[in-house]
Amino acid sequence: MVKLESPVIVLNFKTYSQAVGEKAVEMAKICEEVAAQGIDIVVAPQIPDIYRVASRVNIPVFSQHVDGAGAGSFTGHITAEALRGSGSAGSIINHSERRLNIADIDAAVQKAHESELITILCTNNVNTTAACAALSPDFVAIEPPQLIGSGIPVSKADPGIVTDSVKAVKQISPGVRVLCGAGISKGEDLKAAIELGSEGVLLASGIIKAKDPRAAMQDLIKLI
Amino acid sequence: MVKLESPVIVLNFKTYSQAVGEKAVEMAKICEEVAAQGIDIVVAPQIPDIYRVASRVNIPVFSQHVDGAGAGSFTGHITAEALRGSGSAGSIINHSERRLNIADIDAAVQKAHESELITILCTNNVNTTAACAALSPDFVAIEPPQLIGSGIPVSKADPGIVTDSVKAVKQISPGVRVLCGAGISKGEDLKAAIELGSEGVLLASGIIKAKDPRAAMQDLIKLI
Amino acid sequence: MVKLESPVIVLNFKTYSQAVGEKAVEMAKICEEVAAQGIDIVVAPQIPDIYRVASRVNIPVFSQHVDGAGAGSFTGHITAEALRGSGSAGSIINHSERRLNIADIDAAVQKAHESELITILCTNNVNTTAACAALSPDFVAIEPPQLIGSGIPVSKADPGIVTDSVKAVKQISPGVRVLCGAGISKGEDLKAAIELGSEGVLLASGIIKAKDPRAAMQDLIKLI
Amino acid sequence: MVKLESPVIVLNFKTYSQAVGEKAVEMAKICEEVAAQGIDIVVAPQIPDIYRVASRVNIPVFSQHVDGAGAGSFTGHITAEALRGSGSAGSIINHSERRLNIADIDAAVQKAHESELITILCTNNVNTTAACAALSPDFVAIEPPQLIGSGIPVSKADPGIVTDSVKAVKQISPGVRVLCGAGISKGEDLKAAIELGSEGVLLASGIIKAKDPRAAMQDLIKLI
Repeated sequence: MVKLESPVIVLNFKTYSQAVGEKAVEMAKICEEVAAQGIDIVVAPQIPDIYRVASRVNIPVFSQHVDGAGAGSFTGHITAEALRGSGSAGSIINHSERRLNIADIDAAVQKAHESELITILCTNNVNTTAACAALSPDFVAIEPPQLIGSGIPVSKADPGIVTDSVKAVKQISPGVRVLCGAGISKGEDLKAAIELGSEGVLLASGIIKAKDPRAAMQDLIKLI
Repeated sequence: MVKLESPVIVLNFKTYSQAVGEKAVEMAKICEEVAAQGIDIVVAPQIPDIYRVASRVNIPVFSQHVDGAGAGSFTGHITAEALRGSGSAGSIINHSERRLNIADIDAAVQKAHESELITILCTNNVNTTAACAALSPDFVAIEPPQLIGSGIPVSKADPGIVTDSVKAVKQISPGVRVLCGAGISKGEDLKAAIELGSEGVLLASGIIKAKDPRAAMQDLIKLI
Repeated sequence: MVKLESPVIVLNFKTYSQAVGEKAVEMAKICEEVAAQGIDIVVAPQIPDIYRVASRVNIPVFSQHVDGAGAGSFTGHITAEALRGSGSAGSIINHSERRLNIADIDAAVQKAHESELITILCTNNVNTTAACAALSPDFVAIEPPQLIGSGIPVSKADPGIVTDSVKAVKQISPGVRVLCGAGISKGEDLKAAIELGSEGVLLASGIIKAKDPRAAMQDLIKLI
Repeated sequence: MVKLESPVIVLNFKTYSQAVGEKAVEMAKICEEVAAQGIDIVVAPQIPDIYRVASRVNIPVFSQHVDGAGAGSFTGHITAEALRGSGSAGSIINHSERRLNIADIDAAVQKAHESELITILCTNNVNTTAACAALSPDFVAIEPPQLIGSGIPVSKADPGIVTDSVKAVKQISPGVRVLCGAGISKGEDLKAAIELGSEGVLLASGIIKAKDPRAAMQDLIKLI
């Protein structure tokens, strides 16, 4: 598996029109250039774009989702095996825009690890962060849903949710690393996220929808 | 809230034709008679039957499901407030036949507790048991899905899943009590469940579909 | 089955705090009194409240949801049989706040009819109205989701969706009756709904959250 | 859009281990060779494999699933736009292993058509076939779930479901073409499917899991 050094930046392309198809490759190339300054940047394009992006850049490409299904009669499910074969190095799981039931989250984490995918399990509050830590993903990413896409950084709006998440995770499953997300876009936000005890950020619109995504990414890392 | 003493027996009526409508009341009355011998028996009829059953027996009546929704625009959702008002003393949550995503499980547990409902959170393996314990329900009920309705008791087929669940729960959230389920029907099964460290059982077909449910329930408690 | 004469008024209590438990009975009694003026008013309280409401009023009580499950291992599912036994005369199906996949909608309509429940199948546009008409419910209720709870009546905001729905239904399944909903609250709205070819309305907040629900209901029927 | 001539053969790779990653390309190449005899064969690999497969064969590559989501905050959703960009010529929608609610089916068909994807909408009985025809996909594919993967062809086990589906579709939406599936694997099955009025078949395990998929595909088309 790829080794990701703190601070980790995970850029979720969602289904934004600014980063689909060939534009997904371009966005990933921008990230690759910024990452060359010595910081781990992960890109998560739409699933049909993973193969294309992964064959064109040398930074880790993650999926936005993976199911718990293995080989068999599971039409339309996203398997860890297929993701791995398409060049994915990991996957986001249970994003608030693509939630799973808890048995499926557990299965998805297991299957992903069998295929040597790094797992980022998204959570919405301290309780579910604690619960998800018990499933032993590589990362949990705490994102209060009301702040997603808001432009108000979680590190400012609700710093306690980050510190309490870090604390809860360390008690239950100390090997699990914590990311935080929602409203993150500036260097100050990333710096605050690290100071609160997280090891990086999960972000999307703040970079993807920026007029100049390269400048936005550059701003994000300026204080670290 | 009702205080349930170990061993606790929770009888899930599912949607069995043997225990719907007036037959649900009859099944609950059988349980009430057996419970009079000094054992806590909880009945979980179909949701539309709760009010009728709860107004006719004096043992705790639980719901088979509760949603995380509160008051508002949530047509068709099952709220804790309405359950409480209909005479429910608690609710099963996340049964393998009615799974929820993890954010909704957390919300359902919170809302249920606000309405003073006892919560039984169902899980399918040790991992998800640990995760669910972190959500602080009153009980977790570990039920390997492949054994549900099989007639093969979990306490015999997979005793390790029960002891490991008990151990995981005690580490994460010592106040949470453990039930076990799947394939339970006889006195030996309940005895084994207790010896493995659980505080009771969740069962269904073994009693409901028995030729003589009263005799089956009597058999279940004979060794305790 | 109950015979409902046009115009039909269906009042969805959703999970509003103004109409749960004993307050659901009170709201239903208000409807019963207004209905005594010679108009068919159906009430749809929360599912746990159906038995209580149905045993206290003489107007039709509908469920807000029914599943396609029959008798068996379907914990937490809402069966037509249990609804019928609890005094329900019908059910809303596939409300935009409680959507079902199409195979389950079909099963729910079938099961409901086997239990002699009247079915109201909710749809969101002309296409899905046409599709749902093919499943032969008693009623389809067209409700553009963006207008639900808006206070802007569909009959004014988008009259074409009502007339086109009526036309589509008549072509595919002429026996199916059309209701319309979303933003309905005043006498003018009901009158317009009828003039557009529908046979009644499905409404909620406009009455339930009114300061004086009786006056609001009285206003609703004043022009017919 | 690609023009597909009857009889159309759609090979669903599901998540079978025999047809993932580079093996998906090999399976598609086998289909391409057989198709060169003058028959339209469509392949539907796992979504992460579409780009790789589509860039290596000249037969139509379909997705196994598409969501109704467009551009925006829809992490993990499969958009028609991304599928189109990855080389997809169409998509299966609402397979029994990946069902959608009816509003989402409608949105998925619309979005797919906007991206010039051919749509195959799966249904489970005559009722839902009629309903889905009203949503104007290019094809409906009727597959009784109990026969999927059974080896018992629908054309033999339940020919009436095919003829009744064809009849229902012609009444509601005559431009919609009918495929049938479930248990199809031999030349006799395809011939029967055509004679019953369908324009082709949707199949999976009969070819993918055959010892010699090329021979199996050759057998399938031998009578047409």
